[in-house]
Amino acid sequence: MANYQTLWWIGDATGQLAMIDQTLLPGEYREIRCQNVEAVWESIRSLRVRGAPAIGVAAAYGVVTGLQSVRNDAQSSFENRLAEVTNYLATSRPTAVNLFWALDRMKQNASLNAARPSTERHDLLLREAKRIDLEDREMCDQIGRHGSTLLNDGMSVLTHCNAGGLATAGNGTALSVIFSAVESGKKLHVFADETRPLLQGARLTAWELCRRSIPVTVICDNMAAQVMKEGRISAVVVGADRIAANGDAANKIGTYGLAILAGYHRIPFYVAAPYSTFDLSLPHGGLIPIEQRDRSEIACGFGKTTMPDEALAYNPAFDVTPAELITAIITERGVFPPSQVPR
Amino acid sequence: MANYQTLWWIGDATGQLAMIDQTLLPGEYREIRCQNVEAVWESIRSLRVRGAPAIGVAAAYGVVTGLQSVRNDAQSSFENRLAEVTNYLATSRPTAVNLFWALDRMKQNASLNAARPSTERHDLLLREAKRIDLEDREMCDQIGRHGSTLLNDGMSVLTHCNAGGLATAGNGTALSVIFSAVESGKKLHVFADETRPLLQGARLTAWELCRRSIPVTVICDNMAAQVMKEGRISAVVVGADRIAANGDAANKIGTYGLAILAGYHRIPFYVAAPYSTFDLSLPHGGLIPIEQRDRSEIACGFGKTTMPDEALAYNPAFDVTPAELITAIITERGVFPPSQVPR
Repeated sequence: MANYQTLWWIGDATGQLAMIDQTLLPGEYREIRCQNVEAVWESIRSLRVRGAPAIGVAAAYGVVTGLQSVRNDAQSSFENRLAEVTNYLATSRPTAVNLFWALDRMKQNASLNAARPSTERHDLLLREAKRIDLEDREMCDQIGRHGSTLLNDGMSVLTHCNAGGLATAGNGTALSVIFSAVESGKKLHVFADETRPLLQGARLTAWELCRRSIPVTVICDNMAAQVMKEGRISAVVVGADRIAANGDAANKIGTYGLAILAGYHRIPFYVAAPYSTFDLSLPHGGLIPIEQRDRSEIACGFGKTTMPDEALAYNPAFDVTPAELITAIITERGVFPPSQVPR
Repeated sequence: MANYQTLWWIGDATGQLAMIDQTLLPGEYREIRCQNVEAVWESIRSLRVRGAPAIGVAAAYGVVTGLQSVRNDAQSSFENRLAEVTNYLATSRPTAVNLFWALDRMKQNASLNAARPSTERHDLLLREAKRIDLEDREMCDQIGRHGSTLLNDGMSVLTHCNAGGLATAGNGTALSVIFSAVESGKKLHVFADETRPLLQGARLTAWELCRRSIPVTVICDNMAAQVMKEGRISAVVVGADRIAANGDAANKIGTYGLAILAGYHRIPFYVAAPYSTFDLSLPHGGLIPIEQRDRSEIACGFGKTTMPDEALAYNPAFDVTPAELITAIITERGVFPPSQVPR
């Protein structure tokens, strides 16, 4: 069982969203509270909370936070604020579809209860956010249960970025597969790509595995091919931020290259992601918008300037792995080849 | 023309080896002087001077430095110290064959002049070191001249680590190809992999290109596949630290993965390296010793701890790219497919 929690709600609908500030890990463990919707937005944008499923849950609670000021107002005021808050939260990160999915669910819940007084609608929205939160935890466990059948005792698994508990409200997606296999008695060794520029693999994935006493070796991203060549990787398991109808999957930058390397070394390449990650409105991955992030993450990501001021930097936060490089997608409903993404 | 010099000798045989301390770039440009052979060894080991050809030249001058204390001694004392100094310098870095090649040339020169007085032998050793230095500069220009024919106006070239002037006594190997093409009037754009863990691409390659006003974009290592997919890379050019008889090439960690990615995207992959890099005693690259470096380079490479203390790290400094992934090797004598490495 995990001995940490990514985010949680404190109190009733007038309460607060609490979370681990993931930008400080592993050096410092600090819990923060978001006092208003701007704080939720900022936490998502600056990656205090990150990972597609966790972003969705945070955004759902963010809607509750944003409506606290109009809780006792007339219907029209509540409606206006609801539109304002959901539109605002939608601008925090562009790639993770779970964000929009969670905001849609909150809007649907609000419109379902449009006839009720604002106070009651607000209370029901908290209930919906908690349902999204709970479903996320259950989804993580199901993904773990289905995916763990793919891993055998003694295997060594490579993962990229952090698709762990810290990326969800529960046990994670890719890491849930590993946690579940270990809990069922299989011994595994994990290789974690450090994942530049923000080092979520070295900082967060390694931290989660250490907290659960699962052996982990951190490598720089450019070492993955060498470790594969040495025969030390039995499988690659990663998460996803958005999956198109044809099975193309957007995930943290570097995933696409890793999938090519796995294919070259004939190593199975698995994507673990909940159904909320699928965006069936997009026929293929080329249509997934890719967030471009700031130059400073590359140029001085460690508080130290590592390149000349005159040099340019290119910093796409995600890439898209084509379905043909994905062995299977692990979902809460089972393991499917990407071509069989259920419609 | 370059407006910087990697290393140079000051004075006669009793003089000193001066160099840029490359560990401080791009933040600080500082010239240092090695007062004794220990300082030369330490400069090579701690990467103040790095890059296979530059290591060879530094080691040659290191031999001169190490013999200063026995310059006026009897033959036997000179011989003993020569063996001591060359054996010692050979332990500084294990992968770059140019180091051993340069030390062998110095030993051969000394034995050729075994009948002469120590003072004269010492002076002749400085002359030999300067010859190695000069040959290195000429080699760089020839590699540039031959390789530049492979690049066309408007091309975008990806390089890894630093195989520039800072890796040689002259204009570099991979970067010499780019410099030479630009000097002949071709407009090029360079993408530089930052090259974790020590960021030689971001720190040194980008610095060299900026000093010569050639446009450069730094990317994290895990972004190379995405930039290739976007159609923005016309060719990859890298250096090498040792090349086996069959054309397998050892170079900075990450090169092997990059070669797989280039192959997948049908982008030509060139290795630029002098003849002194070839080790024909090794039938294939599997026999090249790979330097393993310290955990701290990954765990706190920027003066900040980026992974948990309990997590392991794996830090191979090099990998081996099989000949079949190399389009051609650019040498000072011409451009050859790796299968035709002249014997």
